Amino acid sequence: MHYNNLYMNTFVICSILIFSVPKSFNQNVGPLVKMTNGQVWPKPVLQHNYDEYLKFEPEDFNFNITGYSCDDLQDAFKRYNSMLFLKATNTFKQHNSLSTKFIVGKLDVLNVKMTNPCENYPSLNMDEKYEIKIKNSSGLLSASSIWGILRGLETFSQLVYLETDGSTFVIRCASIVDYPKFRHRGFLLDTSRHYYPIEFITKTLDAMSYSKMNVFHWHIVDDNSFPYQSSSFPNLSERGAYGKSAIYTKDDVRHVIQHAKLRGIRVIPEIDTPGHASSWRLGGIPGLFTQCSDSDPNIFGPIDPTVKENYKFIGTLLSEINELFQDDYLHLGGDEVNSTCWNTNKRIQKFMHLNNIKNDTELKNYYFKNLFTMTRNLKTVPIVWEEIFDENIQLDPNVVVQVWKSDYNYSIVSEIMKCGHPVLFSSCWYVNYIEFGTDWLNFYRCNPTAVAGDNRLFLGGEACMWGEFADETNLLPTTWPRTCAVAEVLWSHELNETEAKNRLEEHVCRMRRRGIPAQPANGPSYCHY
Amino acid sequence: MHYNNLYMNTFVICSILIFSVPKSFNQNVGPLVKMTNGQVWPKPVLQHNYDEYLKFEPEDFNFNITGYSCDDLQDAFKRYNSMLFLKATNTFKQHNSLSTKFIVGKLDVLNVKMTNPCENYPSLNMDEKYEIKIKNSSGLLSASSIWGILRGLETFSQLVYLETDGSTFVIRCASIVDYPKFRHRGFLLDTSRHYYPIEFITKTLDAMSYSKMNVFHWHIVDDNSFPYQSSSFPNLSERGAYGKSAIYTKDDVRHVIQHAKLRGIRVIPEIDTPGHASSWRLGGIPGLFTQCSDSDPNIFGPIDPTVKENYKFIGTLLSEINELFQDDYLHLGGDEVNSTCWNTNKRIQKFMHLNNIKNDTELKNYYFKNLFTMTRNLKTVPIVWEEIFDENIQLDPNVVVQVWKSDYNYSIVSEIMKCGHPVLFSSCWYVNYIEFGTDWLNFYRCNPTAVAGDNRLFLGGEACMWGEFADETNLLPTTWPRTCAVAEVLWSHELNETEAKNRLEEHVCRMRRRGIPAQPANGPSYCHY
Repeated sequence: MHYNNLYMNTFVICSILIFSVPKSFNQNVGPLVKMTNGQVWPKPVLQHNYDEYLKFEPEDFNFNITGYSCDDLQDAFKRYNSMLFLKATNTFKQHNSLSTKFIVGKLDVLNVKMTNPCENYPSLNMDEKYEIKIKNSSGLLSASSIWGILRGLETFSQLVYLETDGSTFVIRCASIVDYPKFRHRGFLLDTSRHYYPIEFITKTLDAMSYSKMNVFHWHIVDDNSFPYQSSSFPNLSERGAYGKSAIYTKDDVRHVIQHAKLRGIRVIPEIDTPGHASSWRLGGIPGLFTQCSDSDPNIFGPIDPTVKENYKFIGTLLSEINELFQDDYLHLGGDEVNSTCWNTNKRIQKFMHLNNIKNDTELKNYYFKNLFTMTRNLKTVPIVWEEIFDENIQLDPNVVVQVWKSDYNYSIVSEIMKCGHPVLFSSCWYVNYIEFGTDWLNFYRCNPTAVAGDNRLFLGGEACMWGEFADETNLLPTTWPRTCAVAEVLWSHELNETEAKNRLEEHVCRMRRRGIPAQPANGPSYCHY
Repeated sequence: MHYNNLYMNTFVICSILIFSVPKSFNQNVGPLVKMTNGQVWPKPVLQHNYDEYLKFEPEDFNFNITGYSCDDLQDAFKRYNSMLFLKATNTFKQHNSLSTKFIVGKLDVLNVKMTNPCENYPSLNMDEKYEIKIKNSSGLLSASSIWGILRGLETFSQLVYLETDGSTFVIRCASIVDYPKFRHRGFLLDTSRHYYPIEFITKTLDAMSYSKMNVFHWHIVDDNSFPYQSSSFPNLSERGAYGKSAIYTKDDVRHVIQHAKLRGIRVIPEIDTPGHASSWRLGGIPGLFTQCSDSDPNIFGPIDPTVKENYKFIGTLLSEINELFQDDYLHLGGDEVNSTCWNTNKRIQKFMHLNNIKNDTELKNYYFKNLFTMTRNLKTVPIVWEEIFDENIQLDPNVVVQVWKSDYNYSIVSEIMKCGHPVLFSSCWYVNYIEFGTDWLNFYRCNPTAVAGDNRLFLGGEACMWGEFADETNLLPTTWPRTCAVAEVLWSHELNETEAKNRLEEHVCRMRRRGIPAQPANGPSYCHY
């Protein structure tokens, strides 16, 4: 036998666990999990359904503004008007007139009552609460802000479904009061390890809005490439991007921000330093990186924290980024810094000695002290990865810590809050890690609510799509519907995975009707769309 | 803590194993694995490269027939003519004139010498050997059959690559003698658990041909749905398909067969019985399925092997299928038969008693004896899944056994060959099982050559794409390039995974240039195409 033994053993063990399952696990005809009709993802806090249905016809339906209005609201009406009436192109197999007998009338109008003027940009503390009442042939959506209205329109659009004749739209009469459990419901996209054309980002934003997610965490640069086109330092992308077509211009970024804000989604950029920045080296900023040793000038470590000019450079870059992006927060990274080269570089050792900096952690502290001064001046709130807290780097109380390591039972979350810092949680929501089968359940079962309690410092969390093995070919089907699980954990107040399965089946088909190639959630299935 | 403990433990263990890897595993700038230029996948048996290159210009190049010709050959020229000159739309970052200095001339013509007339359909014993010589501004491709010419054209097209200027095509001078290690290099697609529109099947065939795979195993029906539109029994798909748009008509099937044969790919249909046939129930064939008990008429087991009419029905269906599909082989399934209901059905027990059939294995034997009589009459060779051999069902020597269970060290392969049966191998090539990362290496490292020896009974193998979690949204990126690993194991005579990594990077970009959304193979990467 020529097989690698270790591999064979692993293979045999795996095969015992899983190989006998798939060919036999479904003895039943048709889809494995039946989809719901007109159920909402994520599940609303309070929903009372009536056993009455209203017909819903494209030519006879319109939105009616009874409160404040603005362009963004009109834009939303336009979007939902087209999404509400996507007919089936696949015909249904059988015409089961499920709810026809309960149809009591027609819904001609949704009254939309926004009780405050539109805000221009979404923020951490935006009010996303809304109420819906569909009853007696009339509909009302009310909220105190545009953000609540947007969430309500999404819910409203999900209450509508297509009858099995493939052409009759129906809405169930219901009363809904809904608001999110957590304020920050994010999705991280890494555009450095692989580059995504801009339309994949806007499609991602669309899909996020279908699950009421509200933060796009743009991990825009990293070791492998530097796609962000800086006006102050154009060489960073000119030389550090994968190619001339693999660049995000400022107009691209503005387009993303605009697309996001129309959907109530914040865009937070991450400029990860002093590690995870190898691609910056190609930009030709002299002295930016730590030379590891005198003998080989081609081995580099993290950014050199002892060079004054480096702070000027970073300050200029952060200031540009801060001006371009509209959010109050800015992610500074700080994860996985390999400080070996700080210890082998004689000049740095001398600097530390002169400045009474005792070790590499203190040097990292020195680096971030300088960065935090910048963010304070820019009036932006920093977010940092967990390590920065772990290593006792001095942090202003408002600095947000994003937890991503999972190997110590989440106690870190409580510790961070005890120190007064807001927390973002991501540990078990690395959606780039794929497992065969219904692995959305892994994300769904990871619910930090118990750890968070009702501490307002627990802001929420983010699903993370690191880019090692994702690119435009697989981003959307890999991300959706798996990320919907995280969206529901962060929005909904009660979770029931058995019931969620059926609802997710419908949500998958809904996303696909809207142009998101969401992959199968639960097994054998078919979308009539 | 509200977490499920079992889940948490699994999660923690997994996290220790993998969570620390991805964010740090690449400290280097740019793609993780450098791609080759003009290297062939799968690797040819003998390839001698010269340090000379020829330019290659669309307007000045043509194929010149010096031997036999036929329409299929002309069709291949047309196809490759358009594939050869796909320019880059993404520009290269830097213009490194790598090979310009070695360019010694221009290739205007590829002389194509086929020494025998075209055969109409590919078969197990088709001759796929070819030779290529590109030297001194002239090119020759020779083979004794159209199949060898097709493989050679694919290789020729892969020798051509684009210079970093994004517009100059170059071919390296080389001598190649190439032929496959195994005769059967297949891909199984399950179109029952999820339905694929026909263009996803033809794209799959395209991608198969780019890696010289030669058998499309169409697992066309199963428990969940019956998409094949039978002319003898139209109700099977009318009622058993997922929907009216989820059907393969005979014209669809003919289109697939034609598309495949033009690429030297056989199409073998699988009609899996007596288990894995639940969807047939909807077709309304009376008495076809085993009723489990007298008390509940709605619980069914496998096809009832004691009812004479059932054989008439199956015979008619198989005869129709055999006439439609052009291959010499027909897959009869036979896997995972749950015979509980045979034992609980009193009529069946009585039948067994009367006919001296002692147990359910003997009953299965009785069933397959009848099926094998049909295939003998149809002059088609049956292929069956491994269980049929394991359970000592009586088999004619020519019956092919497809091995898919992996939990006993492949000794089964030798056993089957010892009994004189041809073998197909699939155990470790279930490409529907996804793992995070470079999991193509798992498929690549599973090499049955040692077990096969030089025994001609070892026909080759198949990568299997079972359909529980695959559909049109993710089929192509999930299948490619992972299945290319299987293609190379089955074609190439020597394997070197270190070298293969770089070659696969190029092959991924080549597939993408040709319209196959192949996902990243090795990590951070970028295609200039």
